[in-house]
Amino acid sequence: PSQFDPDVHPHRRYNPLLGEYVLVSPHRAKRPWQGQVEDAQKPDNLQYDPKCYLCPGNTRIGGDQNPAYTSVHTFTNDFAAVLPPPLPDTGEPVHPLLKIEPVTGACDVARLGTQDILNIIAEWCRLYKQRGSQDEIRYVQIFENKGSMMGCSNPHPHGQAWSTSAIPNIPAAELASLARYPTLSASASSPDAPKGPKGKACLLCDYAHLEATDATAKRVVLKNDDWVAVVPWWAVWPFEILLLPYKRHIPSLLELTASEKTSLADILSGITIRYDNLFSCSFPYSMGIHQRPVPVKEGEEDIHEVAHLHFHFEPPLLRSSTVRKFLVGYELMSEPQRDLTPEQAAARLCACSDVHYLNDTR
Amino acid sequence: PSQFDPDVHPHRRYNPLLGEYVLVSPHRAKRPWQGQVEDAQKPDNLQYDPKCYLCPGNTRIGGDQNPAYTSVHTFTNDFAAVLPPPLPDTGEPVHPLLKIEPVTGACDVARLGTQDILNIIAEWCRLYKQRGSQDEIRYVQIFENKGSMMGCSNPHPHGQAWSTSAIPNIPAAELASLARYPTLSASASSPDAPKGPKGKACLLCDYAHLEATDATAKRVVLKNDDWVAVVPWWAVWPFEILLLPYKRHIPSLLELTASEKTSLADILSGITIRYDNLFSCSFPYSMGIHQRPVPVKEGEEDIHEVAHLHFHFEPPLLRSSTVRKFLVGYELMSEPQRDLTPEQAAARLCACSDVHYLNDTR
Ligand SMILES: O=P(O)(O)O[C@H]1O[C@H](CO)[C@@H](O)[C@H](O)[C@H]1O
Ligand SMILES: O=P(O)(O)O[C@H]1O[C@H](CO)[C@@H](O)[C@H](O)[C@H]1O
Repeated sequence: PSQFDPDVHPHRRYNPLLGEYVLVSPHRAKRPWQGQVEDAQKPDNLQYDPKCYLCPGNTRIGGDQNPAYTSVHTFTNDFAAVLPPPLPDTGEPVHPLLKIEPVTGACDVARLGTQDILNIIAEWCRLYKQRGSQDEIRYVQIFENKGSMMGCSNPHPHGQAWSTSAIPNIPAAELASLARYPTLSASASSPDAPKGPKGKACLLCDYAHLEATDATAKRVVLKNDDWVAVVPWWAVWPFEILLLPYKRHIPSLLELTASEKTSLADILSGITIRYDNLFSCSFPYSMGIHQRPVPVKEGEEDIHEVAHLHFHFEPPLLRSSTVRKFLVGYELMSEPQRDLTPEQAAARLCACSDVHYLNDTR
Repeated sequence: PSQFDPDVHPHRRYNPLLGEYVLVSPHRAKRPWQGQVEDAQKPDNLQYDPKCYLCPGNTRIGGDQNPAYTSVHTFTNDFAAVLPPPLPDTGEPVHPLLKIEPVTGACDVARLGTQDILNIIAEWCRLYKQRGSQDEIRYVQIFENKGSMMGCSNPHPHGQAWSTSAIPNIPAAELASLARYPTLSASASSPDAPKGPKGKACLLCDYAHLEATDATAKRVVLKNDDWVAVVPWWAVWPFEILLLPYKRHIPSLLELTASEKTSLADILSGITIRYDNLFSCSFPYSMGIHQRPVPVKEGEEDIHEVAHLHFHFEPPLLRSSTVRKFLVGYELMSEPQRDLTPEQAAARLCACSDVHYLNDTR
């Protein structure tokens, strides 16, 4: 063996956001597939469906009637995973190994259609602010599951926000890494990179700067004046994307300027068009927004300012519109394993047209 | 709200093995499902298939010919996720945020058929010992993906062992929790529970003892002289099972006595029969064995003796043989969420017959 080639040799990459590893085995992509083949996701049906619980004017499963909405419409989930307080107390745990905590909160659903993406961003801001001002809420997780392959229980395109009285595992782990970073990595931070609170180094400012200024741009899928979309160094899903502001430290949606919202809408549109074009299908994914916990409680201000707004796109497809990556067996028991390098995935996405395949008349 | 009822009220449970939470929302199981419906997994086809890469006598995808095996047969994966050393050096990282490590190892595949489960246990022991004696190997992850729904790339029943030069994320996190436990929880440990190395408390000895001696046995699916199978307090998958020895601290397969192997074969058979009976189908799952890292290196003996052998079963089905739980959106971005309590799941599994539905002639 002479030179290490990440496109050939198995290796592990470190995810500094979660403090975990991913196993990269590029040669695995060649193995034969006699496993499950999915239905290709058809282009979204945006017609009114009289049997759909979420369409304008229809009655929802919980009995409420939807208004005849024509733009973004938000309502409370009829089968919310968390409910508003008060909840009865769980009492003392019967054993220290059987720890339990009540959790309260709310689950909102917003229609993601063909409407102006700016409307959706405005709705995210409104929801984040409104739920965030409720005393018992600590975290507002905005996300979208797109496509039945991603477990959508209803084919009507819709985003969600689950707001909870606790900061969930993953944002909590990310925030801990962000908080630890400045003391660990004074030397790693480029003087040109934007800085976090109190002029200290920020893990995601540094990472975004590193990718946005890298001359080879190997992992960059899209970049504009404010945002960079990369297949991150530590990507788990084959075509995972991390979308970050790279010009300044931005803790949450509420700190975005009008022009940063416009450039965000642009890049979100660019990402989803390339995704659909990759395998000429309505590309399934889970998308989630990570930002500052809410509301800032007395004494916790410093902790939460380390949050750096970012978007995760985690799409399951690997080989085609019908063959997905399964994160099973080894991934469930040991650690995630991927079959192509992040750089190979980024190159595939960069090669896709910026015109949606359904609109491409050339 | 008067009394907290875990079957009704949303709550979070703590997983002391991983230091993470799971969100439990029992009322969610009632929501309508208009999402993806899977093909029910047919009873395993155990007939010889001339086109199957894994059947006796056939040529594998890599060109090797399988022997005309009639019992357990093990071979090296043709598309191994890790490869034997030597690997070229990765060199200095270009940036501290872009950490990379080479990883070496081996991927073995063993046929899991209708053969005596004791043969399979013997093969697990042999593999663990053989791979574990290789200098560069640190961890032997034995696992099985059963069913195309669990991403099996080949329908021929087969288990796998991926052995790596690093201890992967999940076993590493579990070992850290096991190592921390004695200092944290002197008071939590029952005097009757078995003890870990140096007579110190062991997280999994305590947990297994707690479940095995609980008069209500609410989470116990099966129990025999040596082993207890529970839907753990912190289960993520709807019908997840944790299988543990509860009579003594056992770091790895190699410390099992002959009678402990027989009782293990018994309970493994009991678990898989109840699983198949739950929805009258060949029940898909990922199974994984966690045990002591290998080989014990000088000075690390103490760390590794805290390992307590256990088996995880993580099956995807939720409602029926065709509707699974999707760990997507909220689960990928925030934390796992489940739709029925572990106690409800255990009661469902306990209600299943111990005679396989295909053999049930009553
Ligand atoms: O080993 P197989 O069946 O080829 O592949 C399956 O198991 C592997 C290990 O859990 C996963 O990485 C793959 O995504 C999955 O399809
Ligand atoms: O919200 P839906 O579409 O009803 O349900 C889907 O998303 C939820 C949140 O990610 C998951 O918990 C469910 O397993 C999934 O089917």
